[in-house]
Amino acid sequence: MICERFDRPDMDDCIFCQIVAGDIPSRTVYEDATTMAFLDANPLAPGHTLVIPKDHHEHVQDIPAGVAGDVFATVHRLVAPVQDAAGAEASTVAFNNGEVAGQEVPHAHCHIIPRFTEDGSAPIHSIFGERPDLGDDELDDIADDIADGVSD
Amino acid sequence: MICERFDRPDMDDCIFCQIVAGDIPSRTVYEDATTMAFLDANPLAPGHTLVIPKDHHEHVQDIPAGVAGDVFATVHRLVAPVQDAAGAEASTVAFNNGEVAGQEVPHAHCHIIPRFTEDGSAPIHSIFGERPDLGDDELDDIADDIADGVSD
Repeated sequence: MICERFDRPDMDDCIFCQIVAGDIPSRTVYEDATTMAFLDANPLAPGHTLVIPKDHHEHVQDIPAGVAGDVFATVHRLVAPVQDAAGAEASTVAFNNGEVAGQEVPHAHCHIIPRFTEDGSAPIHSIFGERPDLGDDELDDIADDIADGVSD
Repeated sequence: MICERFDRPDMDDCIFCQIVAGDIPSRTVYEDATTMAFLDANPLAPGHTLVIPKDHHEHVQDIPAGVAGDVFATVHRLVAPVQDAAGAEASTVAFNNGEVAGQEVPHAHCHIIPRFTEDGSAPIHSIFGERPDLGDDELDDIADDIADGVSD
């Protein structure tokens, strides 16, 4: 269950795999055969919860389809209890999927972050600066490329 | 397939339901019996894709478990093709789940947004300001509340 080593001098093993193994304590709120959910140790809001596959997979697309289904089922199952426990009106449900997207722990994890009117209600859109200026042909081409890339 | 009406004077029907019905054109990249994926009409990055349940459900937790599984399977299936088509190194995969989380169209939708080194790599964490100062007892209580709220 321990992750492979990473190219990080300060990090011999994956912190989330160590949580799964019980070597690092966590406030676990849900667990089943393939997934686990626990409070983020550095919460952005009360009730900020992480959902992970127990096995180590770095990115969303690296998770085998069956286990990904389990992870998402756990996310779906937890959204309402997380919001309710926090007394929140909404939530941001998100993966920083890859280092360039700001992923810090290289073990795929979905954030469920309770949201409140007083936190400003900014959407994920607020991460981004200027929007790209894309022409119709460019949009058509990229849509075709995505559609062609989908495996059955 | 047309949504219920909303309390918005400028919006008689749900734009995503109209896309599903074919009444509004979209650049569709994937479709199956219960889900649909198309390019965001106001992309934050080239290839910015939305995945929705075809039936109208406002929030993640409102989607029946089976259909939620289908939505997440489509998200999982599309992440790699979206990144590849955009030439991206990563992605932000996220729901603004509820108006207070910045959700603008009241039909649950998952954003898959390609990310690039030059976009600054800010995580979803950058949405939030000051982190809450929570004591151990408070964290224990909220973890218990979440765990108690999870339905089997």
